[in-house]
Amino acid sequence: MTYKVKVFVTLKESVIDPQGSAATKALQKMGYPGVKEVRVGKLMELQVEETDGDLSATIDEICKKLLVNQEVEDYSIEIEEVAAQ
Amino acid sequence: MTYKVKVFVTLKESVIDPQGSAATKALQKMGYPGVKEVRVGKLMELQVEETDGDLSATIDEICKKLLVNQEVEDYSIEIEEVAAQ
Repeated sequence: MTYKVKVFVTLKESVIDPQGSAATKALQKMGYPGVKEVRVGKLMELQVEETDGDLSATIDEICKKLLVNQEVEDYSIEIEEVAAQ
Repeated sequence: MTYKVKVFVTLKESVIDPQGSAATKALQKMGYPGVKEVRVGKLMELQVEETDGDLSATIDEICKKLLVNQEVEDYSIEIEEVAAQ
C-alpha cells in the first residue's frame, strides 16, 4: 500500500523568525498594511510504501529522528492512502 | 476582521529537489526502506487584518509578488477567520 504523507513543521511560538519578520516588513512596505505577521515553516511530502507495522508511529519516529528539530519546531502529520495505479 | 492564512508552497514536479533527495537517502540508510521520496516545500502562516476588498485576491497577489517563485513553485492557500478575542 502506498501512502502520501504530509508533515507540517512550524517554529514554536517562542522562537524568533527572522525570515518571517523580513517578509512581514517587505509586505507592509509593498502596500499590504493588513499583514500583521508572517511565520515561515516547512511542508514535507513523503511517498511511503508501508507493508506492515503502524505507519503513523513510523512517521512520528522519522520526524523526531530527522525531519524536525524539536527544540525549536512543532509538527503535525497528515496521512493519505494513494489508490493503486 | 482577523484572518489566519496558510500558504502551502511546493516545488513543481519537474524541479529537482536536492534537499528532498538527501532526506530520502538518509531515511533509507536509517532503516526506512518504505520511504520512496521526500519533497521539501514551505508552509507560510500569515496573520492578516483585512478591512475591505477581496482577501483571497490580495493573498494571491502577495504570493505572486513575494512569497512564491512561480518559475519553480506551485502554491495553494487556506484562509481561516479568527474569532475576535
